[in-house]
Amino acid sequence: MATRIGIVGLGQIALKRHVPTILADAHFTLAGLADLGGGEPVAGLPILTDHQAMFAACALDAVAICTPPAARFAIARDALRAGKHVLLEKPPAATMGEAEALVELAARCGRVLYASWHSQCNRAVEAARLFLADKQIARLRVDWHEDFRIYHPDQAWIWQADGLGVFDMAINALSVISRICAPPPFVRSAELRIAANHAAPLATTIRFGALDSTGPLELHANWGHVGPDHRELHIRTRCGHEVALLDSGGTLVIDGNVTVQETRAEYPMLYTRFAELVLSGQSEADLTPLQMTLDALALGKRITLPSFEG
Amino acid sequence: MATRIGIVGLGQIALKRHVPTILADAHFTLAGLADLGGGEPVAGLPILTDHQAMFAACALDAVAICTPPAARFAIARDALRAGKHVLLEKPPAATMGEAEALVELAARCGRVLYASWHSQCNRAVEAARLFLADKQIARLRVDWHEDFRIYHPDQAWIWQADGLGVFDMAINALSVISRICAPPPFVRSAELRIAANHAAPLATTIRFGALDSTGPLELHANWGHVGPDHRELHIRTRCGHEVALLDSGGTLVIDGNVTVQETRAEYPMLYTRFAELVLSGQSEADLTPLQMTLDALALGKRITLPSFEG
Repeated sequence: MATRIGIVGLGQIALKRHVPTILADAHFTLAGLADLGGGEPVAGLPILTDHQAMFAACALDAVAICTPPAARFAIARDALRAGKHVLLEKPPAATMGEAEALVELAARCGRVLYASWHSQCNRAVEAARLFLADKQIARLRVDWHEDFRIYHPDQAWIWQADGLGVFDMAINALSVISRICAPPPFVRSAELRIAANHAAPLATTIRFGALDSTGPLELHANWGHVGPDHRELHIRTRCGHEVALLDSGGTLVIDGNVTVQETRAEYPMLYTRFAELVLSGQSEADLTPLQMTLDALALGKRITLPSFEG
Repeated sequence: MATRIGIVGLGQIALKRHVPTILADAHFTLAGLADLGGGEPVAGLPILTDHQAMFAACALDAVAICTPPAARFAIARDALRAGKHVLLEKPPAATMGEAEALVELAARCGRVLYASWHSQCNRAVEAARLFLADKQIARLRVDWHEDFRIYHPDQAWIWQADGLGVFDMAINALSVISRICAPPPFVRSAELRIAANHAAPLATTIRFGALDSTGPLELHANWGHVGPDHRELHIRTRCGHEVALLDSGGTLVIDGNVTVQETRAEYPMLYTRFAELVLSGQSEADLTPLQMTLDALALGKRITLPSFEG
């Protein structure tokens, strides 16, 4: 029997990814929609303006929460208390404290919490994880550069202090690092380059440490990038292998040989995972990418850039 | 047999608290000193300028690390790898990732890691914890105000991005909250008031959430305070009790009755706890106060104050 799922927060990611994925996945039936801004029906369903009203009006087993991060905690809390399984878009909450409280609440309520990371849902990422599982990392270099103006025109919430700025997309790279490195490296220092008209950074550099590595471990991310996306991760292992994840985690190259190359199908894989979790009653919450983000935002050295209009 | 202990970082807190406490505690023998700045001997011991040189020159079982927070990780890592038990002054590291890595490394090395919080080491705090253990919290109001110019003249590192600013002292209040509330509340939002000539905040307001409370849960901390210290915590329980910790955790008042009142003896109690941990081989690392601090610093709304000279 299909899981009846509602969506809260009908922004770009919900409309472009969640709605079509749910409609195409036999494990799920789209059964409710809520967004503070209301709007015309989507997929034949009216958009309610209040998530509690959606819980009351629609027979739901689960909820996908796709609002900006600062709003997620209260909605997820209400959903769990209403007996719904919860899928959280990334990042799972605004603070680590909120995220851990949701894990605790899901356990108390006997419901599944899935803190999802769409960039982890790639065959190439999974293959990289398996290849690296028994190896130590000597060097790590991540470049994650996008043109904000292409992906998020007019999404002003991103540049507020609790909108995370460049980390809204760099956290995808952090989620890949968290998935393929065991144990993941940890933030030692960071630079935050912040446009004069923003509270959250436009670009960042993070320097990591790791107990089993002395080499440079760095992430460079820039949302002011002009040109094609450039989202790559390069690792050298201590035993001499070169591992590269190209095309935002779609292609795995090991020692110069293309091992996996495929059109990314992140959201179908993500919902397949959610269906597995609901079936088994298990929660899954990798909070490391959020912790890395907050460590960097908390301690990073702030550098002011000229104003950025996006 | 006494534990031979060295100290790294001979600033104010080491000279005023750690050295005299160790000299007065029969569980410990002060056996080595290191500080990047060198200096005249203390308690008859020369001050080496390098912690690795201290490990090589002095027969040590343990090390107390009292440097600014950004330096602690590398020194603690080296100490654990050199086979020493480690006592960390608060906060235990600059990032949550560093702190968790030290917990992991201590376990690998079979050595004790004690992430100490001196404000937790008060009889009144322990009595408050026991009183609140079976009660839910309806309201929490913490005021933690000090005059920076009295306690830390000329300590410019505090105002750097990784120096934590007001959180260097407010984290003491957070450590009390973490100790007496089970489970502790979590950060939902914060304001950071930052002097124009500083990178780290001079004052902060934190608003917490809690799974079992809907009332206001707030901390107000100000290092630009003028006048006597004002360090108080007030709790109303859901069953109607009023609990106050006054005098920086030295006095407990329950429903208007003074339950515990004593001259604080935080560092003797702290070293007694470290001796117990070394004897039993157990580590103790409450990372919640650091997590609260980093959550607030990462997501807090930044407000610029006039320049502050301290």
